[in-house]
Amino acid sequence: MRTAANATTEAYGQRIQVPYHYPVTFTRNVLDSDNSALVDTLSVTGPGPHRCLAYLDQGLTAAHPQIADALVAYARHHAVALQLACAPKLVPGGEHVKDDWICTKQVLADLERHRIDRKSFVLVFGGGAVLDAVGLGAALAHRGVRLVRFPSTALAQGDAGVGVKNGINMNGVKNFIGTFNPPFAVINDYAFLRTLPRDVLLDGMAEAFKVAIIKDAEFFDTLERQAPSLGGADWDAIEEAVYRCAVLHLDHIRDGNDPFEMGTSRPLDFGHWSAHRLEGLSRYKIRHGQAVAIGIALDSYHAWRKGLITRAELDRILDAFRRAGLPLYHELLATREADGTLAILEGLRQFREHLGGALAITMPDGIGRKVEVHELDAELIEEGVRFLGERA
Amino acid sequence: MRTAANATTEAYGQRIQVPYHYPVTFTRNVLDSDNSALVDTLSVTGPGPHRCLAYLDQGLTAAHPQIADALVAYARHHAVALQLACAPKLVPGGEHVKDDWICTKQVLADLERHRIDRKSFVLVFGGGAVLDAVGLGAALAHRGVRLVRFPSTALAQGDAGVGVKNGINMNGVKNFIGTFNPPFAVINDYAFLRTLPRDVLLDGMAEAFKVAIIKDAEFFDTLERQAPSLGGADWDAIEEAVYRCAVLHLDHIRDGNDPFEMGTSRPLDFGHWSAHRLEGLSRYKIRHGQAVAIGIALDSYHAWRKGLITRAELDRILDAFRRAGLPLYHELLATREADGTLAILEGLRQFREHLGGALAITMPDGIGRKVEVHELDAELIEEGVRFLGERA
Repeated sequence: MRTAANATTEAYGQRIQVPYHYPVTFTRNVLDSDNSALVDTLSVTGPGPHRCLAYLDQGLTAAHPQIADALVAYARHHAVALQLACAPKLVPGGEHVKDDWICTKQVLADLERHRIDRKSFVLVFGGGAVLDAVGLGAALAHRGVRLVRFPSTALAQGDAGVGVKNGINMNGVKNFIGTFNPPFAVINDYAFLRTLPRDVLLDGMAEAFKVAIIKDAEFFDTLERQAPSLGGADWDAIEEAVYRCAVLHLDHIRDGNDPFEMGTSRPLDFGHWSAHRLEGLSRYKIRHGQAVAIGIALDSYHAWRKGLITRAELDRILDAFRRAGLPLYHELLATREADGTLAILEGLRQFREHLGGALAITMPDGIGRKVEVHELDAELIEEGVRFLGERA
Repeated sequence: MRTAANATTEAYGQRIQVPYHYPVTFTRNVLDSDNSALVDTLSVTGPGPHRCLAYLDQGLTAAHPQIADALVAYARHHAVALQLACAPKLVPGGEHVKDDWICTKQVLADLERHRIDRKSFVLVFGGGAVLDAVGLGAALAHRGVRLVRFPSTALAQGDAGVGVKNGINMNGVKNFIGTFNPPFAVINDYAFLRTLPRDVLLDGMAEAFKVAIIKDAEFFDTLERQAPSLGGADWDAIEEAVYRCAVLHLDHIRDGNDPFEMGTSRPLDFGHWSAHRLEGLSRYKIRHGQAVAIGIALDSYHAWRKGLITRAELDRILDAFRRAGLPLYHELLATREADGTLAILEGLRQFREHLGGALAITMPDGIGRKVEVHELDAELIEEGVRFLGERA
């Protein structure tokens, strides 16, 4: 390109396409020696043995004390395909693992020491926080080694664990540091769900409700009908909820044609602006799923007052949450700054900044469809907080 | 997918495509108020003012003490398009900026403090090391903010600065930590070349020779003819060399259809296995371009002995380097480990590991074409070191 105004300027327009393909497998008892899901996953790259370094979330090992031994036994049984570079490494679970660089740097040191290369694998078993922090280390070593995620919570199996992101927090900003980096594969083992505490299981159901409300009316009907069983009474219902939640997230990432969110594509973040802020205000004592349930309740109130859903639809959502055992309110929702404004409103500012200056909030448009709105009414947020506080 | 052997396993095959487009602009005096290259670059995203945070390599500011003021004046003149979030920040230049996390973490702290979001820009002016370390910070903040690179050396303008990588070093392993992350744009300002010391300028010419030898015989003829002028005597020749070198790298990244090197696609790394190792052995006192020239000389010897190039072609390469003022040898090339093996051979092991276990070395196949070889002969490497030591 030569322009008259600037005859010395030439430009080369570089265009590249990066294709990613990763399988998301749903199975049970992935470390039983006759379960071939992991071996099949590794073997698509050619003959083994494939070198692997494994990380285990201590929340998972507490519930499944035999899992490290089971992995070692699995590797021994499948030694032709799979070789562990060292004994599985334990990582503290929960959001605090993302508070600083410690976990991610330890992963980098491990990968360097054990000479994990771009054709080797990192296996990570755990909840979303451990997948995020270990995943960031794996994404940075050699500019990305192959990561196989084994999400161990309903939330991770249905949402973050099947997606394309990782991250850690900085100065109270959730996921300030991270990359877009699709995994090599994801293996969802339903058996891990059975040992989850009821409220941790329900975290995943909050995300299932989220995606149903904005994407799939029939799925919402199902969840609503099964609400009292979603805390552990009906495993078929729970597994179906996790599966449908994962598939809706995967479809959304694929169909948006902008998986790295460079343009206008948006994640399924209904209810998330206040959820992230509530988590931060509680110093992550409120878990993500609980915060999302409260965030959905708050934004659903807003959606009703703006005419996006009917009062009957609002009540269906809130009643289903109540019957499932999901929270609608937390006292931190009503925390105020020194100047009297609601502290959660800072969450809107952080959300706008993360998006790049222009606010875009996903709202339901009836149940089962979504619409993007570009501003929220602070007065209606105040009203919603009062309404939910009275209802709780 | 349901398989007979494992009826409980289902798989979802996620497929996504990530498109990238970035302009690489070649200009002069980019901060002159009537040069529109930067404003044009920012403005493709919509109306401004676009918030920018700028980093300047202290190697560049030493040669151009007015550059920070010029950038501030440029922003003031183009205030409709461009707003600096704060005064330009200085970064120490040279490979040592990649020795640890200090620079990258400082960038993350700056971007958080100045609330640079995914629609804002990081501008970085400097040599390859500063582009790499600052670029990693920009790639990690909010999972990637927009990066406009202004490479200031011949090496960076022709090679790394127009590519898709960033990185820092760990435990002596070059670029162990980093990401594939295409820039938003690259602006190559030829005027920066004029103040480079002769040997720094020649670093870029080593990369031009590299890409010519394996990709473009006519370009090699040109470089060979102009060799005595490439150290600063003929700016038209130097600018042409930088331009052609950049375009050959850009074409290679695009045409390989695997810019993130997930499959078998390879960077143009002729001569690089020993170059990286030499840099490390010298604790980065030998600069990258010098090390590449020596690495090319060594691999060209090997290529001659394997019949890939003729003795006449080997002599053309070595003579052109000599006439250009590029080194063919350094005493560290002959350093031995305690067991008597050449220390540079560890570079082959690191290279193999980085590639994922299977060695693949780019070699010339005649001048102007390349071939991939999968092993090197240690005896011929010994011979090559002796040959170059005697010739030097």
